[in-house]
Order: sequence, then structure tokens, then C-alpha cells
Amino acid sequence: MADIGEEVKNKQVLFRDYVSGFPKESDFIITTATIRLKLPQASNGVLVKTLFLSCDPFMRMLMKNQSSAFSYSPGSLLFGYGVAKVLESAHSDFNEGDLVWGMLKWEEYSVVEDPGKLVKIHHTDVPLSYYTGILGMPGITAYFGFHEVCSPKKGEYVFVSAASGAVGQLVGQLAKLMGCHVVGSAGSREKIELLKNKFGFDEVLNYKEEHDLDAALKRCFPEGIDIYFENVGGKTLDSVLLNMRPHGRIAVCGMISQYNLDQLEGVHNLMRLVPQRIRMEGFIANDYFHLNANFLEAMLSYIREGKITYVEDTVHGLESGPAALIGLFSGRNIGKQIVSISTE
Amino acid sequence: MADIGEEVKNKQVLFRDYVSGFPKESDFIITTATIRLKLPQASNGVLVKTLFLSCDPFMRMLMKNQSSAFSYSPGSLLFGYGVAKVLESAHSDFNEGDLVWGMLKWEEYSVVEDPGKLVKIHHTDVPLSYYTGILGMPGITAYFGFHEVCSPKKGEYVFVSAASGAVGQLVGQLAKLMGCHVVGSAGSREKIELLKNKFGFDEVLNYKEEHDLDAALKRCFPEGIDIYFENVGGKTLDSVLLNMRPHGRIAVCGMISQYNLDQLEGVHNLMRLVPQRIRMEGFIANDYFHLNANFLEAMLSYIREGKITYVEDTVHGLESGPAALIGLFSGRNIGKQIVSISTE
Repeated sequence: MADIGEEVKNKQVLFRDYVSGFPKESDFIITTATIRLKLPQASNGVLVKTLFLSCDPFMRMLMKNQSSAFSYSPGSLLFGYGVAKVLESAHSDFNEGDLVWGMLKWEEYSVVEDPGKLVKIHHTDVPLSYYTGILGMPGITAYFGFHEVCSPKKGEYVFVSAASGAVGQLVGQLAKLMGCHVVGSAGSREKIELLKNKFGFDEVLNYKEEHDLDAALKRCFPEGIDIYFENVGGKTLDSVLLNMRPHGRIAVCGMISQYNLDQLEGVHNLMRLVPQRIRMEGFIANDYFHLNANFLEAMLSYIREGKITYVEDTVHGLESGPAALIGLFSGRNIGKQIVSISTE
Repeated sequence: MADIGEEVKNKQVLFRDYVSGFPKESDFIITTATIRLKLPQASNGVLVKTLFLSCDPFMRMLMKNQSSAFSYSPGSLLFGYGVAKVLESAHSDFNEGDLVWGMLKWEEYSVVEDPGKLVKIHHTDVPLSYYTGILGMPGITAYFGFHEVCSPKKGEYVFVSAASGAVGQLVGQLAKLMGCHVVGSAGSREKIELLKNKFGFDEVLNYKEEHDLDAALKRCFPEGIDIYFENVGGKTLDSVLLNMRPHGRIAVCGMISQYNLDQLEGVHNLMRLVPQRIRMEGFIANDYFHLNANFLEAMLSYIREGKITYVEDTVHGLESGPAALIGLFSGRNIGKQIVSISTE
């Protein structure tokens, strides 16, 4: 552990340039800078040591050159959610030794000049990495996306795509706790095993082995689907639309099948919204961050009582980060993808 | 006026066979049967004289051969909404001379064996034809679709497609009464004139004269769209999705641009639902029929106070019905399309 004031090496991941198509490892630059472990004189921020970084699908959107939305800057540091330890603080909300989660740059040591958005971690009887997943942004996404956007009722039929992912595995388990009938889709036998044996999904569907997704959904949902938790978009959404029950709800969390396409796929069956009176609603976790305390209380209880389990896929060291990040888009990860940077 | 018991000629419109592509006049058969103006002995229904029949876009869906949904039967009578007068009743809810609106067969005289779904008309200080439009199913669609599904607030930016149609003209006027900024699109100069000068839309857009609908919407909505009342689907929806504001709402009433296509157009910009947290919701008027009394009270006041006006496009005689009906799909009608059958 380096001391305050010391000058140390600081491994970093830079974003090379805007990406079209699937991102490659060469779209990122791993470099080593040096940093003096001391806040700049005028800083009101915090100096942190990065412990875990999170690989999340939304990061793909920031790699696009979008006039209308925020993007990564070519040549600058990548950033995303992570967990860190405060080494020095000039901000009244934080003290040395505090553990925090929030948006962090992809480097080993980092100055956060606007720490107001960091969340302090008070509960450390659970793995710290959980604050990138089940207790962080993906957890908030799953919890409020399911409970608020999906308006679930006991006994309803729920379909979750990308069901072994950071969010999907939680939605499935939350739906089971609610007394729903839950079917999940994933793209490998290993993931399918997880859904069945670890997360307790009622039925599973390997979309790579189904040549007719509509027929597969009709097999899994002879009564139709009340709730679809949408993580993938494209053809899956089109097939789901054909199988929704009256007054069904589609919570649109993401559409990972579309993120690397230059020409987005068309969705053809939206007319089904009308006769079936389907509500389809997009949402983002940020809108629920103010409810973090309620969320944390509920989710910590579930974890401590063993009612919800969480599977992570961990790689070690910043240099493994780019491969882990791009692996999200080929479905390489089994569970929530994290990069462990330091354990101290 | 024919007398009860008399045998009279009864003009009818039959549905020839399932339709693909645009419907043609030859998809319908005009024929003349005879009918004795007397309820069958065992009937619990009503015998009615048809006054007005309504041409509505949903009727196109019933012309398809759909395994999953209800269709017209080849060779049998066409049906749709209409207004009629009761000539004889074997049902305790109805008396001779009552005026009713509801689902009627396309014929001059008709026995309704299940009159429970007919709505009795009590207010006749307004044109009777209004019960096929502003005071009937399209009115209920506009009123609840706008007030319930769109959740409008004063000052919001509202876009209505097919804005001079049976529903669109009402949504635009209801939105103005609510204090919204309202833009409507239509496909001819005559319709555009109506929107501006008769219905009070703030801005108008002739979609046939815009080669870039996205740019046209950005011109009409520099601040973006809060509410889109969707009547057309396809490319319009795709352009609207690019211009929705955060927490925008899309009420999906219909998608008339798609009804005659064998291959539905793809909608490509659904990913916008997520960052903008857009709610897109399909609905049908039937779900609000139980609120008809509240609706009627509100809408009759608007009409009587001159706050809402309604434009109808009327053809005369059943033999003009098929051309009027198929005209909906080429945008021939200016305002709500009705067929006047009899005025007595």
C-alpha cells in the first residue's frame, strides 16, 4: 500500500477513438502514468484507490460519436461504475478510509473532483464488489425496473432476456420472490444451467439453439407473457410482441443486440401494442438513485437471508479490463462482469 | 317509411374475401335482399333501421385472415359502428322509436340479436351522425386516449398524426383546451387548412411535402415532443422517436400506414425509449366504454359551448359505402368518414 504523498505508478485505460461495429481490444490503450498521492492544493474532491471497476453494456453507447448525447472523448480516460477507497479527502462528506461506489475513471488511483455523486458504503459484511452489481447500479436497475416499471402481480408470467447478466439474474429472482412464473433466455449451456440451478428460473430458453423464437416462446408461455424485461431488443422483442397477453408490460432496460450495429434492426410487430393494450416503457437507474436507502435495505436483507444470490465474473488487473468489457457484447461473461483492481 | 310487418327491399354490403394489400371496391358485394319488418318469433333482440354507418380504420384489420384474431367472414355481411332507430323490440332495455349506436351490420334494416352492447341515444340536439364520431367510438378513443394514456399537462408539446381524421381532430382540440402546444400532420393542403383554421392547431405539417420528417419535426418542435398521439406508425413513428423529450408519452391508437402492407415496416429507433424514459402504450376505446356517461357529459358541453367542432365527410347510400371505406387508406376523406343511409 502506497503512502500519502508518495509518487507511484498509475495504470490507466484510455479510449482510443469512436467505435463502429463491435469494439475491439485495440479500441483501448493501456498506459502507465505516475501520480503523486496527494490532492491538488485547490481541490475540493477526494483522492481514491480503485478497488473494482464494472463492465456495463451502457458503456458501449458512450463509444459512439453522437451529436445528441454524451460520449467518451477520444484519447481520454475510460470511465464507468466502480468501488474505491478514499485515501485523502478535501470534501466534508468523505473521510480517509471511506469506501465509496459511483462513476470512476479507469485508473488505479484517481482524483474525483466532484465526489457529490459518490455513494458511501456502510455495509461491508457483503463482498465489496457487490456495489458494482447487486447493490449498485445494476441492482437498482433490476429492483425498480421490475417493481416500478413492470407493476408485477403474483402469479404473472415473466420473461427475462439476457437472464444471467448483471441485471437479468436479479430480475428473475425478484420475480420468483413475488410469486411469478419466470422464464429466462441466455446464449450458452453454462448460463442456462445457472438460470435453472442457481437462480431458480421456472423455465429456460437457449436462444442460440432456437431457430424459431416465436415458437419457443409459445412453448414456454402457452398462456402468453404478462411482463417482459427487455435487455436485448431486435428479433427477440419482435417475437415477444407476438406473445404478450392483454395489458402486458415491457420494461425496456436495454437492447444489447443493437449496440454494435451501424444499421439498427427494425421491429415489426408494434401494432400488437394496440389490441393487447401493451405498455412499453424505457427507464434508467439514475431516476431511482434517490431511493437508494430503501433499495439497499431490501436487497441487503435478501442477501443476508440467502433469498437472492449473485454470480460475478471477475478478471484481475486493469490490463484485463478492455477484453472483459468487449466480452459483454459477445456474451463471454457468465454473470456480472467486474474487473478487480486491488483488494486493499 | 315502411310499416311493421311489411316486406321490403334491404340493401346490404357483403365482404367478398380476405384482403391483402389495399382493399378495392371489388372486395365488397352490394346486393339487395328482402326482409319482413318483424322480429322472428323467438327473438330477444331488436329490429332496427340503419341511419348512419361509420367507416373506421380498424375495419381493415378484420379483412385479414388472422388465425389469432377475429375477422370478417368471407361472403357474409360487413359490420361496423353505426346509428340506428329501433322499429321493434323484444328486449326490455329498448322500445320502438329508441335511437341507438353500436355495432351494426351494413344493411338498411337489421335484426340485432344481442342488443346489450347498443348504447341508447338520449341527446338529440346534436347531429345524430355525431354518435359515429365525436360522441361515439372515435370520441371515446380521443378523449380517454389523450386524457388517460397521454397524461397531459398544461404547456406540453403535443404531436398528432392523421390529425384531421375522426380521432386526430378531437385530440388536437382537446390538447388545445388543456393548454398544450399542438402540431398536427396531414397529407393534403385542404386538410392542413382545416387543422389551422378550423381546429386551431398551433402548427401543421404536410407529411407528403416533407422529404425529411425528422428535420420537419425539429423545426416544429425545437424543444422536442412530450406527447405523441400515434395514428400512423412506420416512418413517422421512427422520426418522432428521435424527437421525444425525457419522460415523453406515446399513445398508440393505430398505425394506419401499416394496415395494407403484407410486410410490416420496421421501426428502428426504439432504443430512444431508454435514455428518454419514454412510455409507449397501446389502448382501445372498449376499455373505456364503461365511462361513457362521464365522457358524454364532457363532450356534449364542449360541443354546446362551441369549444370543440367536428368535421364529417359524408357519402349517401349503402352503395357508396365500399368506396368511402377504402378511401380511408388513401387519405381521401376530409374529416370523419360516414355513410348516411336514411334520415328518418
